[in-house]
Amino acid sequence: MEKLILHEDAVSGNCYKIRLTAALLGVPIERRQYDILKGETRTPEFMAQVNANGRIPVLQIGDKLLPESNAACWWLASRTPLVPDDRFDQADMLRWMFFEQYNHEPNVATLRFWNAFVGFDNLTEAQRALIPGKRAAGEAALALMDEHLASRDFFVGSHVTLADVALYAYTHVAEDGGFELARWPAIMRWCAAVAGTPGYIGIDA
Amino acid sequence: MEKLILHEDAVSGNCYKIRLTAALLGVPIERRQYDILKGETRTPEFMAQVNANGRIPVLQIGDKLLPESNAACWWLASRTPLVPDDRFDQADMLRWMFFEQYNHEPNVATLRFWNAFVGFDNLTEAQRALIPGKRAAGEAALALMDEHLASRDFFVGSHVTLADVALYAYTHVAEDGGFELARWPAIMRWCAAVAGTPGYIGIDA
Repeated sequence: MEKLILHEDAVSGNCYKIRLTAALLGVPIERRQYDILKGETRTPEFMAQVNANGRIPVLQIGDKLLPESNAACWWLASRTPLVPDDRFDQADMLRWMFFEQYNHEPNVATLRFWNAFVGFDNLTEAQRALIPGKRAAGEAALALMDEHLASRDFFVGSHVTLADVALYAYTHVAEDGGFELARWPAIMRWCAAVAGTPGYIGIDA
Repeated sequence: MEKLILHEDAVSGNCYKIRLTAALLGVPIERRQYDILKGETRTPEFMAQVNANGRIPVLQIGDKLLPESNAACWWLASRTPLVPDDRFDQADMLRWMFFEQYNHEPNVATLRFWNAFVGFDNLTEAQRALIPGKRAAGEAALALMDEHLASRDFFVGSHVTLADVALYAYTHVAEDGGFELARWPAIMRWCAAVAGTPGYIGIDA
């Protein structure tokens, strides 16, 4: 297989998704670090050579570059047990991954980033004005997940898929953003189940 | 094949993606309309019976329900020429579909909805405060697309894929949201190429 290099910031849950997918599959990945807080993904060099969108993660596969965390997870996991073969289940897995990027990440991940890494005092007025909306939308996303998980062990089918990996990354550290996970018992149980999967690594690994 | 019912609002670009995918594939879909502006997707009945997330589109496949526009397109198009077989190209197609939901839709589609359907005078103060940020982010997404398309006919490979369908839906009507498409000539050329694809239908069809 081609050499894999993950262009990342280790604190990012989006980057962790890719490391966790690779770990569950036993695939080695070389890691290259950039500091988001220092703007290292917005330099002209990064945007010309790694990602014109100025964002990490980017999975480098040989000399090809693949931005977007969930697309990189798909590249790693398609045709493995982390992606269902069944036509409906496969689309349903992607449904949760699109939900994650649209309803979950912009709220749950952003509040974690602002709270635990940028710091409230360093936010702009415009950012502070967004907090109540992101809090409510993040809680709605978590409530929807909790309701879905109340009668299931995993998001799709009966074992871990990329839907779980994608949603786990920022959910299990949501308390860093001020969300109280104890409010959602099915999420707590599911987080423990994901963490018990063979090959699992933590976000700090 | 199971009967397909699209739960939708005809003005939504997210719903149009699914109709366009089905049209390109020659697959018939029954349409069931809900008026977003009247809150018809937020009723207890809709949320209990169609989508707990209170959103359209939802593709109903027999008695199964599939929310998220890009997941529904995937269900329709996987194992057809609209989805590349090549492992990298397939992931790269999903990369543009995740980009669409994260960087494009929340900006380009939301400003269209506020401008052309809700009306500026009916926006809340909080919504108005978001306009400059959404304008800048929408322009950045369009500029990135234009740069990518400057040297290519389509987003991935040499023919239409779901990446084009997903990004076309709100791009070709971006002027409804106050974006000047003439600024991005490669996008204009690409829109014409998508509209020339056999089986194409317009958003009003």
